[in-house]
Amino acid sequence: MLYIGIDLGGTGIKAGVVDEKGVIIAKGSCPTAPERGYEAVIHDMAMLAIDVAKQSGHAMNEIKAIGIGLPGIMDPRSGRVPFCTNLAWHDVPLIAEMAKYTDVPVYADNDATVAGLAESVAGISAGCENSVFVTLGTGVGGGVVLGGRVFSGSHGVATEIGHMITVVDGEQCTCGNRGCWERYASATALIREGRRLCEAKPDTALARAVNGDLITINAKHVIDQAKAGDLDCLELFDRYVYHLCVGLVNLINLYDPQVIVLGGGVSHAGQFLLDAVRAKLPDMVFYKAMPYARVELAKLTNDAGIIGAAMLGR
Amino acid sequence: MLYIGIDLGGTGIKAGVVDEKGVIIAKGSCPTAPERGYEAVIHDMAMLAIDVAKQSGHAMNEIKAIGIGLPGIMDPRSGRVPFCTNLAWHDVPLIAEMAKYTDVPVYADNDATVAGLAESVAGISAGCENSVFVTLGTGVGGGVVLGGRVFSGSHGVATEIGHMITVVDGEQCTCGNRGCWERYASATALIREGRRLCEAKPDTALARAVNGDLITINAKHVIDQAKAGDLDCLELFDRYVYHLCVGLVNLINLYDPQVIVLGGGVSHAGQFLLDAVRAKLPDMVFYKAMPYARVELAKLTNDAGIIGAAMLGR
Repeated sequence: MLYIGIDLGGTGIKAGVVDEKGVIIAKGSCPTAPERGYEAVIHDMAMLAIDVAKQSGHAMNEIKAIGIGLPGIMDPRSGRVPFCTNLAWHDVPLIAEMAKYTDVPVYADNDATVAGLAESVAGISAGCENSVFVTLGTGVGGGVVLGGRVFSGSHGVATEIGHMITVVDGEQCTCGNRGCWERYASATALIREGRRLCEAKPDTALARAVNGDLITINAKHVIDQAKAGDLDCLELFDRYVYHLCVGLVNLINLYDPQVIVLGGGVSHAGQFLLDAVRAKLPDMVFYKAMPYARVELAKLTNDAGIIGAAMLGR
Repeated sequence: MLYIGIDLGGTGIKAGVVDEKGVIIAKGSCPTAPERGYEAVIHDMAMLAIDVAKQSGHAMNEIKAIGIGLPGIMDPRSGRVPFCTNLAWHDVPLIAEMAKYTDVPVYADNDATVAGLAESVAGISAGCENSVFVTLGTGVGGGVVLGGRVFSGSHGVATEIGHMITVVDGEQCTCGNRGCWERYASATALIREGRRLCEAKPDTALARAVNGDLITINAKHVIDQAKAGDLDCLELFDRYVYHLCVGLVNLINLYDPQVIVLGGGVSHAGQFLLDAVRAKLPDMVFYKAMPYARVELAKLTNDAGIIGAAMLGR
């Protein structure tokens, strides 16, 4: 059985024909150019799907389903996308628009959800019934798989794990609340704390690494200084890992998955991050004598969006 | 089809024969006396089960399953109870012990989970696929029903919602972490804050209501003063409701249930509590334009443990 997965991003659209096991057998891409409006973007998605099918040597009627991962949320009952901020989509009839170009059933879900599904089919959490994928990027996103299926809740608004409040009255979040986890566990948090460190200590290694140009600090700068053994950045990183573990413990206490997969930009810190999390987490779990989720790094990177989207229709 | 539900508490054991719809057709009880050891307690549970079956006019072979709700956790794979603090149980072979007395299949789960299941079968969340039951008592417990079934996670340690951290570096919790939700949303939190208020303001209405004997303050005292319009207790209660809503929003962001049911001692504040929560929650949810969980008070009270336990075997 074959599926088409479409990874819809703010900049580009990627699509691939994927088999039952999550292996990509053909792929292609095109620009998104969202300023053209949703009709044009959806038209191009459909054409790209037809194109990759042809490229794979299969007719569209051999494709069981088309799945789309998008940077927003999907209402599965209405077939509409209520919000997709990066694309400036509001209440877009995605499924109906796709149906203008193809008879193949179309499914869609949030991109973090889709990436989590990809890992659970063909990645580090392959074969796990229950897993949580955590993207540590500009924000913190989540993809929850329960019983081998994507969990999206009753109204499609579940797994907004980045907006779980972990610090009452904490940092102001874009969502209107204070102290959301993503204010503390995202790359953005590392950058903010790095800048604050440099403002307080203009002579610290991090400030010197960016020649005092604090606006250029990114998460990698902070992590690289910590890796190099700079005490200020190690302290900052340790506090970051504590906040990260607070949220991970909450995920364990609520979802009790077999695996938690860390993805997104900050996860490129690799083993350095994983070791720090694995050192801190055991003291924080509630049932210390019981087995609990192991924490792993994401394995699929660029193609997770295509594979996971394809698996939505499985 | 008939089921037996057993509500195992630290003081008493209650059991009942329950039909498919959650209606109790016979019930009985006996003391727990946990100091006798688990063998005697489990023996008495089995005898009580046989007794209520007889009382209902049905033979044990007409009973499809026995369910037990207990104040601890259950490992469904081993059939053992790893912890049950109130009964001083540690690694108790519950299922094997029950099998000494009856051939009827036995299931067990946490008492908050069981109460949540009862509400979802015969209570306020009846007919809902996805619901979260929150007990606001000495601690905060949770019962999560997803897809019409109890959700216990991969290792039986899920739905420890009271130990979700909402206040990093906050109040010390019995679990070893700081800032768990139950430190702020339980009856214990209302009592602690009531005492702190009276220490800071010895002439406040709450202090006068207990004749300055702060050790006697309970959650009802605090709520009654708030209901009576005392400004100090209203402020305290408002802050309590804020902390409660922080956790409820987290539950919505993670589980996205159709209904959140409030039970336990604090829920006896009734409409006063419900109105306060319903006034504060809408501003805190992430997707304000999308439907989200409605919040309700528990409907079943004393018999929730029997009904929910019985439904474990359904």
